[in-house]
Amino acid sequence: VRIDLNADVGESYGPCVIGHDAGLMRSISSANVAAGVHAGDPSVLRQTLRSAREAGVAVGAHPGFPDREGLGRREMRLSAGDLESLVLYQVAAVAGVAAAEGMGIRHVKPHGALYNMAARDKDMAGAIARAVAAIDRRLLMFVPPASKLAEAASEAGLGVVLEAFVDRAYEPDGSLRSRTQPGAVIDDPEIASARALRLVREGTVTAVDGTVLTLNPATLCIHSDTSGADRLAARVRADLEAAGVSVTAPDVARRTP
Amino acid sequence: VRIDLNADVGESYGPCVIGHDAGLMRSISSANVAAGVHAGDPSVLRQTLRSAREAGVAVGAHPGFPDREGLGRREMRLSAGDLESLVLYQVAAVAGVAAAEGMGIRHVKPHGALYNMAARDKDMAGAIARAVAAIDRRLLMFVPPASKLAEAASEAGLGVVLEAFVDRAYEPDGSLRSRTQPGAVIDDPEIASARALRLVREGTVTAVDGTVLTLNPATLCIHSDTSGADRLAARVRADLEAAGVSVTAPDVARRTP
Amino acid sequence: VRIDLNADVGESYGPCVIGHDAGLMRSISSANVAAGVHAGDPSVLRQTLRSAREAGVAVGAHPGFPDREGLGRREMRLSAGDLESLVLYQVAAVAGVAAAEGMGIRHVKPHGALYNMAARDKDMAGAIARAVAAIDRRLLMFVPPASKLAEAASEAGLGVVLEAFVDRAYEPDGSLRSRTQPGAVIDDPEIASARALRLVREGTVTAVDGTVLTLNPATLCIHSDTSGADRLAARVRADLEAAGVSVTAPDVARRTP
Amino acid sequence: VRIDLNADVGESYGPCVIGHDAGLMRSISSANVAAGVHAGDPSVLRQTLRSAREAGVAVGAHPGFPDREGLGRREMRLSAGDLESLVLYQVAAVAGVAAAEGMGIRHVKPHGALYNMAARDKDMAGAIARAVAAIDRRLLMFVPPASKLAEAASEAGLGVVLEAFVDRAYEPDGSLRSRTQPGAVIDDPEIASARALRLVREGTVTAVDGTVLTLNPATLCIHSDTSGADRLAARVRADLEAAGVSVTAPDVARRTP
Repeated sequence: VRIDLNADVGESYGPCVIGHDAGLMRSISSANVAAGVHAGDPSVLRQTLRSAREAGVAVGAHPGFPDREGLGRREMRLSAGDLESLVLYQVAAVAGVAAAEGMGIRHVKPHGALYNMAARDKDMAGAIARAVAAIDRRLLMFVPPASKLAEAASEAGLGVVLEAFVDRAYEPDGSLRSRTQPGAVIDDPEIASARALRLVREGTVTAVDGTVLTLNPATLCIHSDTSGADRLAARVRADLEAAGVSVTAPDVARRTP
Repeated sequence: VRIDLNADVGESYGPCVIGHDAGLMRSISSANVAAGVHAGDPSVLRQTLRSAREAGVAVGAHPGFPDREGLGRREMRLSAGDLESLVLYQVAAVAGVAAAEGMGIRHVKPHGALYNMAARDKDMAGAIARAVAAIDRRLLMFVPPASKLAEAASEAGLGVVLEAFVDRAYEPDGSLRSRTQPGAVIDDPEIASARALRLVREGTVTAVDGTVLTLNPATLCIHSDTSGADRLAARVRADLEAAGVSVTAPDVARRTP
Repeated sequence: VRIDLNADVGESYGPCVIGHDAGLMRSISSANVAAGVHAGDPSVLRQTLRSAREAGVAVGAHPGFPDREGLGRREMRLSAGDLESLVLYQVAAVAGVAAAEGMGIRHVKPHGALYNMAARDKDMAGAIARAVAAIDRRLLMFVPPASKLAEAASEAGLGVVLEAFVDRAYEPDGSLRSRTQPGAVIDDPEIASARALRLVREGTVTAVDGTVLTLNPATLCIHSDTSGADRLAARVRADLEAAGVSVTAPDVARRTP
Repeated sequence: VRIDLNADVGESYGPCVIGHDAGLMRSISSANVAAGVHAGDPSVLRQTLRSAREAGVAVGAHPGFPDREGLGRREMRLSAGDLESLVLYQVAAVAGVAAAEGMGIRHVKPHGALYNMAARDKDMAGAIARAVAAIDRRLLMFVPPASKLAEAASEAGLGVVLEAFVDRAYEPDGSLRSRTQPGAVIDDPEIASARALRLVREGTVTAVDGTVLTLNPATLCIHSDTSGADRLAARVRADLEAAGVSVTAPDVARRTP
């Protein structure tokens, strides 16, 4: 049994320190590296890629909306053409800086509001998938199960990696509970760890109303900006490994057909 | 006899129209494409690359300072490390978007204040050259003659293409006359054309005080935001071709050793 | 009979020229001055205020979303608290720079997507109205007829000035036809002028499906970035004055109770 | 004997937490509030003003260069006109938001590279002073002793408040040692406190080469982003008060003629 653990990293920029990258890098197997648009900057991007390499963590591009103040978490309405170019630009930048460091990117995960909107919106999902495929059809796309983004990525010929969240509550329809609602964030490492184990073993999670959702994830996300995210990640990884689960980045063979 | 004509393009973004790209593309042989930092945006970048391909114009990346309001023309002091990352990011983005369009970039030309500062400052020149070489050592760097940037590019193993300006006045030390000074900009197509012909045939230009400067350029720059830049470019090209000069992008063979 | 003509101005910034301000200033009676967030910059703001004074045009603050690339025309979701602070900041900046020039602002008009969203959304409308009232309760708010923004402004004790658009098509529900739809923009000066006259005399306009809408506007907006906006504005003003209508900024007496 | 203690606050924005504002507010008597350009945002600005009021701390505007990534600490070259407008805009915004909260600003302190450049450059100093005077001639300007900024502020009719830094080393010419040099930052509370006491009692500080500089400050700056800045500030204040020094914001009577 194996699973990938991913987290968003490289969101600091200039004087602004965001996240717990150093700690997280010791526990995750895939790093979603901010592309300098919703967060991050060129120097942080380069340093984050180097840190991932040192930690043996696979890297992916993490494109987001051009909204630093909202950290890419506020919905924005762009035309499909502008969105495609925006994602293309960000993936190109991360892939190119990685290549200059002798590294390759393995996956793309849209960030925040872009991810959530693309889960529901076919046009947005298609624009993102086209952009990623134009860079490299071998890239994997991290997607919510049963989402428009999963469909669009598959149609574009990309491998999809189904994702679940260990530190966020789910609504009965499978969406994440809004951060503005109580109980949206799960910051107790013990609870998060138990959820992770169940997601790996049974593929399920219980939504806020008691509904059991079957997600069958191939990667589990740990939010990097939750207080104590690094300790939570360490606990999740330790418990998974103690239970005989191998924590490792997804490979081509895990692609959903 | 041959010469390259280059101009800055792709500087528009969102609601902001800058330059005379459509007209210039008919006359130039190399396009310096803004990378979305000092100017341009992902959609404009992509469209500009496509327009260059249609016009048969070679493309290069045109990185600049993160200063949209100043159009990258105001000096900024960055550490060498930050500058290297900043250039790396921009060249990676342009090269990656070009690759997604099935195109390759041929050259890099730093923009505005970055170009002028790097002409004089060895540390900045070195940072830029390292960034470009990390992307691809076959890239050509457009540089001022006898500059720190020319030295640094050569030391980094990059081919250098010496550049002169047909529509800007020169100081006796070979620097461009500041735009804040009278007579800095030459917008008369006839005068610009005569300067271009002399630069190609004799390799020289006369500075504001009468000094004759020997520049021996392999590429001539036409500023895209001068009023009537497209007409000026058309005139320069027509007169060069009428004089038997071939206007064509530089190739590897023109590399200074 | 009197009417106000307003237009958005001061949207240029740095190297970016937007709009036809110089021409429009000769025809309008109220200028909505961009606040340096969705468009404009401090130097343009100051110069625009001076130009308005010279032209005898009343000035107002024109706050918008922090989205320069989208010119404030793309929807963004902000919390009510953040929105209130955002509007407060922008109105404070414009009012303060105007005061330093010995001028006072007369009105506030939210820009683009902010205006359209606040027309429908009570929470957003309330946040905007509270921000404006916190600056000065004597400020007038330009609002769509029968909108949440009109309600909120009245409840906050602000005078409201009902607005109609002479160069944009209306949907039967009174909203503006989206710019992405055909026929959304009316750029024929003759048609725009006829619409203006009817709006002043009868208070009505015909929607795209033939529905007659009663708007009873006290101010008419002319979009500044439409091609030929300055000529259209000149025609509208000339025809209004020829018909005996006085074109003048709204005053306190025109406040809706 | 009395002295003012000031610190930069309100530099956080969106997801970005900068500084130790809550702790500092308990020890300082004057807060330099970021204006949303080099740092801060409208919501943080408003909240910071409220926090200062609750803590009984006087507030001032803290304008800086438009360079968030560099936190306003990188030199930028603007024309005097653009600089004057830039400062005017920022002071207007802070003063206007403060007024909406029922508060008045007492002083202006240019930030970072703007402060350092204006200390040496008469044109920049004049532009800043004109902008502040255009807002309100009763505003105090915090300035380095014997600087161009002190001269320009006096000539503009503003009260000047001489400033010294307790946690930064001095060069023999009275300038601050660059942060890129070793020993530039003094983060030992005991040393900082001793320096503060000597600056208040004798008006002097010893530069890195042993030169004794006479500064006679009326306000002492504590940097908000130094690690442990809040504890350092608490120690400085406690020691000053234990020595019988009253820590209080400057008033009009302290104006240098």
